[in-house]
Amino acid sequence: MLEKIDLNKTVDKKSYRKVMDEASQRLGLLQRECKAAGIPVIIVFEGMGAAGKGVQINRLIQALDPRGFDVYACDRPTEDEQMRPFLWRYWTKTPARGRIAIFDRSWYRSVQVDRFDGLTPEDKLPDAYQDILSFEKQLSDDGTVIIKFFLYIDKEEQKKRFKKLDGSKETAWRVTREDWERNKEFERYLTMNEEMLENTDTDYAPWSIIEAVDRDYAALKIVTAVMDRLESELEERKAAGEKPAEKTPLKTTRDRFKNGVLSGIDLSKSLTEEEYKERMKKLQKRLAQLHSELYRLRIPVVIGFEGWDAGGKGGAIKRLTSQLDPRGYRVNPTAAPNDIEKVHHYLWRFWNNVPKAGHIAIFDRTWYGRVMVERIEGFCTETQWKRAYQEINEMESHMANAGAVVLKFWLHIDKDEQERRFKERQADPLKQWKITDEDWRNREKWDQYEDAVNEMLVRTSTTYAPWIVVEGNDKHYARVKVLQTVVDALEKKIKKVKESR
Amino acid sequence: MLEKIDLNKTVDKKSYRKVMDEASQRLGLLQRECKAAGIPVIIVFEGMGAAGKGVQINRLIQALDPRGFDVYACDRPTEDEQMRPFLWRYWTKTPARGRIAIFDRSWYRSVQVDRFDGLTPEDKLPDAYQDILSFEKQLSDDGTVIIKFFLYIDKEEQKKRFKKLDGSKETAWRVTREDWERNKEFERYLTMNEEMLENTDTDYAPWSIIEAVDRDYAALKIVTAVMDRLESELEERKAAGEKPAEKTPLKTTRDRFKNGVLSGIDLSKSLTEEEYKERMKKLQKRLAQLHSELYRLRIPVVIGFEGWDAGGKGGAIKRLTSQLDPRGYRVNPTAAPNDIEKVHHYLWRFWNNVPKAGHIAIFDRTWYGRVMVERIEGFCTETQWKRAYQEINEMESHMANAGAVVLKFWLHIDKDEQERRFKERQADPLKQWKITDEDWRNREKWDQYEDAVNEMLVRTSTTYAPWIVVEGNDKHYARVKVLQTVVDALEKKIKKVKESR
Repeated sequence: MLEKIDLNKTVDKKSYRKVMDEASQRLGLLQRECKAAGIPVIIVFEGMGAAGKGVQINRLIQALDPRGFDVYACDRPTEDEQMRPFLWRYWTKTPARGRIAIFDRSWYRSVQVDRFDGLTPEDKLPDAYQDILSFEKQLSDDGTVIIKFFLYIDKEEQKKRFKKLDGSKETAWRVTREDWERNKEFERYLTMNEEMLENTDTDYAPWSIIEAVDRDYAALKIVTAVMDRLESELEERKAAGEKPAEKTPLKTTRDRFKNGVLSGIDLSKSLTEEEYKERMKKLQKRLAQLHSELYRLRIPVVIGFEGWDAGGKGGAIKRLTSQLDPRGYRVNPTAAPNDIEKVHHYLWRFWNNVPKAGHIAIFDRTWYGRVMVERIEGFCTETQWKRAYQEINEMESHMANAGAVVLKFWLHIDKDEQERRFKERQADPLKQWKITDEDWRNREKWDQYEDAVNEMLVRTSTTYAPWIVVEGNDKHYARVKVLQTVVDALEKKIKKVKESR
Repeated sequence: MLEKIDLNKTVDKKSYRKVMDEASQRLGLLQRECKAAGIPVIIVFEGMGAAGKGVQINRLIQALDPRGFDVYACDRPTEDEQMRPFLWRYWTKTPARGRIAIFDRSWYRSVQVDRFDGLTPEDKLPDAYQDILSFEKQLSDDGTVIIKFFLYIDKEEQKKRFKKLDGSKETAWRVTREDWERNKEFERYLTMNEEMLENTDTDYAPWSIIEAVDRDYAALKIVTAVMDRLESELEERKAAGEKPAEKTPLKTTRDRFKNGVLSGIDLSKSLTEEEYKERMKKLQKRLAQLHSELYRLRIPVVIGFEGWDAGGKGGAIKRLTSQLDPRGYRVNPTAAPNDIEKVHHYLWRFWNNVPKAGHIAIFDRTWYGRVMVERIEGFCTETQWKRAYQEINEMESHMANAGAVVLKFWLHIDKDEQERRFKERQADPLKQWKITDEDWRNREKWDQYEDAVNEMLVRTSTTYAPWIVVEGNDKHYARVKVLQTVVDALEKKIKKVKESR
């Protein structure tokens, strides 16, 4: 495939200057239009070593307003990055609406340079490809424009460039032992790159191969490709804007999910005060031991809490954490998104709080807001919340692929119990702050929520990230069930990890 | 000092439970009141090894809503943290208004454990103390409540605890070789800690020494101290709220600064097109070389741009960066603060963008907004902007202490030139976006701004972070002056660093 590329393409200085000068103005204009339209843009530079990624990025950004883009050089992951799922370092760098993020090397490292260097084992390759494809798909579905360049030079040209760099004191540090190895085994490395290009050339994020021997030619091709893509994107949006907006009727899926998971839950389960105290004490002690094992084995844990208002999330979280070492867990409350979060993909803020290996991240309300409150209140379109089930499954699978334990609890109570708790809260001066008018309003939408929850539980309970519905009318029973479930899951995981090491 | 502490203080189980149960409710309430009042709270735990910092933090947070606090364990700095000024890792963790940040070890590391371990050289101690004092003062002036605990146990008790930890497979990793060394040289380490307590016990951030042999006693003392401090803080604010609010008359300091720096600037300076091209080319080439040297020598660089609207900041930044490796610099645009930034100290967002060693951070508008637009528009009180000169000088000195080159440019044009440029922009379809109604409104306040700028230049131009006023009526002259100044400063710094290594 790549050996068919004609590397002799060149352009003369004069036509280069002419085209670039024009392009410069046009690109600046396009950048402002994308900013106004709130389009996030990602531009990826990959390619053979010394193909000139740095040079080309520099030429491209000459035409851009430096206040509107960021350049990220993706070297080998730092300690901190290694302790998180593979995509974490990239998710956290995805651009806000209207901004441009330029990546000098990217998430493609894993299937290419890191693969060659043996950092990505061959049996992890299918996962790595899957992670990449779903990452790009999710961003693209959310409106991000993804432009990918692969800069190609052949073995001889590369050798020549390495030698030149090696020859000067100022640049010699740029050529590593690994670079020379990849030059020696050029064919083998090339095959990996070709495989990458084939596997990840999608309609929503296509590759452009750049003949990179002549730098001017390459720069022109890159700038032109960026401009064409941004222009066609802007035109498409304009055209779409003239069509009537997508209708989002509040279609209930009640029929399908009416006899759903929740209706089968036995809410009469309970524990006596005595049983509760005894089991709770044992479970908390055991949890503290497991927490310390997690830390030593570097296992990350993600625990999400959802449930009806007054379902007992706060109390369960408190019992769960009370004997844990506070240095090893974090409770992330999820409120309405702030103005930074609003200009990113809805999963971005959760990616930012993915736990380090060995740490526990507890979410009080979660990413499932997308398919509950956002769905019901119309904060997102029908297309968006329907797409979210798969996106969420993918995100959780990325965490699980990185070795995380992922658990999600639905704290279930019935409507009468909720009313009782609301009234109790209102009567208690110490608890009044917990209850607002909004809680009463949400209560009126109980049936809509019940449908949404039933659908959510069915669509997103997976082997790697199961939903646990907790019978919550009796708080004792509920809290013990939460802790017992966490203890069991951690023990199972720890056993598995120990066996595999 | 510490040897006078009575370590035999104890409390019986029953009174412990009673006090703790009451405290628990009261502390939860205080947390909510602080949240409502928007008070940020910092609680620092320092002390001898194995004094029980983790245990005490855990007991304290039992009474807190886990959604309202964060616990930070401050071990030795990571690679990433080492590449930034000492206070960076702490500034970025300061709590938002209404939140509580609990530090398990803190910025005191540098003058205590890191000092003992030889990581802080003795000749750097005065700087380290200065950094700590001004950090706490700045936060306290901004309304942060700072509560500091020092947990004390004696040599024998520590030895006993280390042995016990060492005895169990699960806890042995907690006791390091350094811990044992500090036990052996207990007296020497103690002296360092006493010095620390004396030097940093201020009225705005006092230390509480906690007798930590009996854990229940220690927990009670800590919880009580926290409650007392929060209560008195809340009362003080309530009392202050009843007094008439601080008046912020727009006192001009015109008289004092009327014949200020700006009036002496010769705006007729210019360069011919030819001179400009020749010098620019040379300067850009030289800058690229210096950039690569900076990277190898790990020198961080901070360059701030301020100036009149249409003063030419954008053009100067573009020329400055055009030949730089985009992986080694970042342009940070400074707009009105977003809602996350608004609930932090006004310097917090700039601390977040402090460059790594070897990198250049360029700020398009800066922290000087505090003493210009915020002062003039009344976005902060008179007390606040008057205090800001010193705060800013301190921040820049922290950066300089960490080895950074810090430069600040004021791009100066006169009122006629501004009008000419505004009109030119309005006439050019490609530049219309650059000019808004606000620009015209700001122009009406020219005299007020001129006074503020004159005062700012005088009060914040320091040897370690000088202001450079750039004669900007001729763009060529201005751009060359900016680049020449940067080149000179970098060459000087590089020479100095090379000589000292």
